[in-house]
Amino acid sequence: MAGPCAVESRELLFAAADAVAGAGAGLLRGGAFKPRTSPKSFQGLGSEGLSLLAQASQRTGLPVVTEVMDTRDVPLVAEHAAVLQVGSRNMQNFPLLREVGRQSKPVLLKRGAAATIEELLLAAEYILQEGNPNVILCERGVRGFDPSTRYVLDLAAIPVLRERSPLPVIVDPSHGTGHARYVPSMARAAMVAGADGLLIEVHANPALAKCDGHQALTPEIFAKLMVNLHELAPLCGRVICSVAAADSARATRSPRTNGNPAGSFPAGILPAGSLPAGNLPAGNLPAGNLPAGNLPAGSQDRLDAGQAPRPNSFDDEVIAP
Amino acid sequence: MAGPCAVESRELLFAAADAVAGAGAGLLRGGAFKPRTSPKSFQGLGSEGLSLLAQASQRTGLPVVTEVMDTRDVPLVAEHAAVLQVGSRNMQNFPLLREVGRQSKPVLLKRGAAATIEELLLAAEYILQEGNPNVILCERGVRGFDPSTRYVLDLAAIPVLRERSPLPVIVDPSHGTGHARYVPSMARAAMVAGADGLLIEVHANPALAKCDGHQALTPEIFAKLMVNLHELAPLCGRVICSVAAADSARATRSPRTNGNPAGSFPAGILPAGSLPAGNLPAGNLPAGNLPAGNLPAGSQDRLDAGQAPRPNSFDDEVIAP
Amino acid sequence: MAGPCAVESRELLFAAADAVAGAGAGLLRGGAFKPRTSPKSFQGLGSEGLSLLAQASQRTGLPVVTEVMDTRDVPLVAEHAAVLQVGSRNMQNFPLLREVGRQSKPVLLKRGAAATIEELLLAAEYILQEGNPNVILCERGVRGFDPSTRYVLDLAAIPVLRERSPLPVIVDPSHGTGHARYVPSMARAAMVAGADGLLIEVHANPALAKCDGHQALTPEIFAKLMVNLHELAPLCGRVICSVAAADSARATRSPRTNGNPAGSFPAGILPAGSLPAGNLPAGNLPAGNLPAGNLPAGSQDRLDAGQAPRPNSFDDEVIAP
Amino acid sequence: MAGPCAVESRELLFAAADAVAGAGAGLLRGGAFKPRTSPKSFQGLGSEGLSLLAQASQRTGLPVVTEVMDTRDVPLVAEHAAVLQVGSRNMQNFPLLREVGRQSKPVLLKRGAAATIEELLLAAEYILQEGNPNVILCERGVRGFDPSTRYVLDLAAIPVLRERSPLPVIVDPSHGTGHARYVPSMARAAMVAGADGLLIEVHANPALAKCDGHQALTPEIFAKLMVNLHELAPLCGRVICSVAAADSARATRSPRTNGNPAGSFPAGILPAGSLPAGNLPAGNLPAGNLPAGNLPAGSQDRLDAGQAPRPNSFDDEVIAP
Repeated sequence: MAGPCAVESRELLFAAADAVAGAGAGLLRGGAFKPRTSPKSFQGLGSEGLSLLAQASQRTGLPVVTEVMDTRDVPLVAEHAAVLQVGSRNMQNFPLLREVGRQSKPVLLKRGAAATIEELLLAAEYILQEGNPNVILCERGVRGFDPSTRYVLDLAAIPVLRERSPLPVIVDPSHGTGHARYVPSMARAAMVAGADGLLIEVHANPALAKCDGHQALTPEIFAKLMVNLHELAPLCGRVICSVAAADSARATRSPRTNGNPAGSFPAGILPAGSLPAGNLPAGNLPAGNLPAGNLPAGSQDRLDAGQAPRPNSFDDEVIAP
Repeated sequence: MAGPCAVESRELLFAAADAVAGAGAGLLRGGAFKPRTSPKSFQGLGSEGLSLLAQASQRTGLPVVTEVMDTRDVPLVAEHAAVLQVGSRNMQNFPLLREVGRQSKPVLLKRGAAATIEELLLAAEYILQEGNPNVILCERGVRGFDPSTRYVLDLAAIPVLRERSPLPVIVDPSHGTGHARYVPSMARAAMVAGADGLLIEVHANPALAKCDGHQALTPEIFAKLMVNLHELAPLCGRVICSVAAADSARATRSPRTNGNPAGSFPAGILPAGSLPAGNLPAGNLPAGNLPAGNLPAGSQDRLDAGQAPRPNSFDDEVIAP
Repeated sequence: MAGPCAVESRELLFAAADAVAGAGAGLLRGGAFKPRTSPKSFQGLGSEGLSLLAQASQRTGLPVVTEVMDTRDVPLVAEHAAVLQVGSRNMQNFPLLREVGRQSKPVLLKRGAAATIEELLLAAEYILQEGNPNVILCERGVRGFDPSTRYVLDLAAIPVLRERSPLPVIVDPSHGTGHARYVPSMARAAMVAGADGLLIEVHANPALAKCDGHQALTPEIFAKLMVNLHELAPLCGRVICSVAAADSARATRSPRTNGNPAGSFPAGILPAGSLPAGNLPAGNLPAGNLPAGNLPAGSQDRLDAGQAPRPNSFDDEVIAP
Repeated sequence: MAGPCAVESRELLFAAADAVAGAGAGLLRGGAFKPRTSPKSFQGLGSEGLSLLAQASQRTGLPVVTEVMDTRDVPLVAEHAAVLQVGSRNMQNFPLLREVGRQSKPVLLKRGAAATIEELLLAAEYILQEGNPNVILCERGVRGFDPSTRYVLDLAAIPVLRERSPLPVIVDPSHGTGHARYVPSMARAAMVAGADGLLIEVHANPALAKCDGHQALTPEIFAKLMVNLHELAPLCGRVICSVAAADSARATRSPRTNGNPAGSFPAGILPAGSLPAGNLPAGNLPAGNLPAGNLPAGSQDRLDAGQAPRPNSFDDEVIAP
């Protein structure tokens, strides 16, 4: 998943969308409603931004993920986006969680900057409990004391979440570090640590971005990183980080890996089996596509019981939890 | 670098030492003087532990790294160990930093649990300023609020440190996570994020360990992880995390990569060029072997100037800092 | 301001309301819509709870402060409550901030557990910018690493906030510590540090509370604490923490202290001049009553300019900021 | 306890010492060996500084507290100082804790910036276990994420520590906030929260200080603050924060309150009964004077058992722990 932080104009959005599509990303991200610390910062284009995202989706064939902040906007956003994002500031906005839980679109739930992993899983429960089984958990950094990075990207959350939940886990190294130059190494690290996907900010011209430009990759760097991840993935799939192996292991329980080629991780940055890839019609992601069959029936029971629904690839095959 | 948290007995130490040597580790770690939160916990065997470590070193051919806590013990420890460890609790024990700075042995300096990266680099300056150019920086987790892991392993510290300092950077995923089952994924992540080495706790029988057994790998898991890292390394070296490429880049400034085969990272878990590998006589690491020629003359000046002495592999070749 | 964490039943609410009214509190707090970490915890009585709060307000003459979480609920809550609370989990729920900013009722804005003081002030700006000048800032603890207390109550935020903003500052020692037995000492500390008020949980029978009972005071302890604060206040007002002196100082700029007796702090726990006291009709707090005249015209300009609008009592008269 | 951060010159030290003595402080603090983050910062005058401190002590009649960082310096420092300080960076320097535990002088132990309260108490155990019963615990702020203050002063640690340990608890608002203008409010808050004493930096001319000048009070402000605390104390002693009441309660177990007038807290900033006041010969504090008789026999047992050895003044008389 990649794209600009905010939708700023048709030209910039299309340029970024073309770039991420060309590099092989599986989803396009872009903010229409932007949560900004200061009321004087650019707040996003709102419904106009949604419309531009829908156009970019049609143009590139990429489904769109975008943030929703207000319970009143959920139906509108759900109409335009393939995946609804709940931002880290709203991780415990419980009415919003319930509202997106009533939609048929997958929900990308970002961990709050001061949220424990337990609190993240309980926030996901609010969504699951309303009947929406398609929740993607996203680690994006917790508050720390060191000004060197914007947040402390807690990559150990990946194996912890995999151990405690069957939900897919992705990582946002752009917000997690706050600096474009640290994104590639953290993207690689997240991938080999077992992340199911990455959420990366790409901007056609970071220097001109209205928000968070310093943490956005240029299309060139992003394309290069995608090649990198592609090369690393087969090895992960085969021997080490076991995207394919893990998928195979999971396949016995989950329909989401059916028909997915091993090592397909970087194609959509998310493993093709776990999230909608480019072959899905934009804005029209069938509910239940994602962790599907294995979640609705009793996911919260499993969470409650503290079960470890997913092996941490090779690690858990050997190390008893 | 691998080995038990504490030296407990000849039998357990030798079993662990044989295991890590057999798996291809480049240094043996083991604590003779142990900093323990409670005065009633096992405090280590002291000088007897040093003697056992020296025997284990001779037996396996592996140089030994062990912690020193008291300025008065520095000469004794320096006599037995190839590398002196300053623990995270002592990162700002300035008299100790000065004392190890006067020795001819490399110093492994662990980041304090509440220390910024700037503070870690300034602590290293205390050692460098006394004339010892061989300082290895170690990320081992910062204090966080989530009880899921013992600390928050701050892997973004790797690219940040590489950017700000020419000193080698290693990662301790054992203390950083506090749970053996999260160690392999974090070890892989650290490696692809650019770490120059890993410090991993291995115990012949973790269930019997007198300290931190829950975070120690068994010899079997460790061996399997080493195979993993070996398989991942060439890819890193060749395409992605660029151990070799980075070494080549550094070779113009540093003698430490001379004669090292590309991608040799996992042989000693540390890249063979940056730290003493198995071909060095145990306990006899020549000073200056490490970041050597490029440090003494003006390392602190470079630190002061905020220069970025090392490329973050492919990333920095493309992304202007 | 005092009252139960959640409205649970007519009996328990009235018992608590009578107790806090009898002890001299100036506002009644109680949760109708409760943000709970787990979806399986008691979620509050909703609109029925609002109705009970309105009855308790009529019965005791105390205005009511209660939390609103959903933009769609704002009009309903504003109809029943004298003060709208935005909880710490929603401090950066920007649509909610804007919505309460359009109401004529004062807003109690709690600091997020990972929010800097700057971020708290910027969140207040969202409300002020919509035209509502009556924002009360509330320190309630930030996330920390020590399990001894639920949060780290950051009392130094009081002088920092007073220095940077003209808005009144209150403290919630109940959530801030999470343990009833630490509440009295922290309440006293907050008061002498310059807080304009306190938000304290009181429950008729804490052992039976459906949420956060362990941090609620019994009516007896609360009454005793009120006596304590009353005794301490005149000394503060006269010599030390200078509630009256500070109010006098502010009186030149602010109408809110008009006619208030010096040292009246504990009467309503909030200084009578800065927030609606018992003499206001419940649920009918005139807008602009609060920091009134001095805010609307240019409060954000002053915030932006980093001005220090309030003296920290005796301290700032002597110490140049 | 008050005085300059570092001993810089005879003139500046004497000016500060005269000022704090004149204002009624009970101990003089001053750093001869200074732990500094950077090796290029002023490191203190060392043994020359100790000699100047001894002269200032003789001149003013105030006993001296100063920091020791190196096990090898302990005998020298113990010769010159009445109280040995172990700084926050050395809270878990266990050899140093053991060494000061073998001295006959009281030890002021500062909490580490990332240390839990449990870890602080266990660090104190290292000292107690060596036979030195006179340990004073000092809260001085924990690492936080907000740049507004240098650390987060955790005042709730006061009632927590009082509950878990019979050792006296003091607070350092100077390091805890890092800004002189926040010190008076935090000093008052610490006092009414139950602190047994305060450690405040005073410098004859803060603008010229070689270290931490921005957090030092001028002699004038310090004198004014002392008057303030004096006026607040009787009320605390009589009604609210119960220094005297608490002391009376403790008197049944502890000889330290014998003969102390109620409410004498600010005389030495420490309650006269708990720490050496001005009537003690400088540099000659009899061991056992402090929490004396009640500690040696079984303090660690009590700590281990999790007993709550001291009432939090009025609070614990009423609230069952």
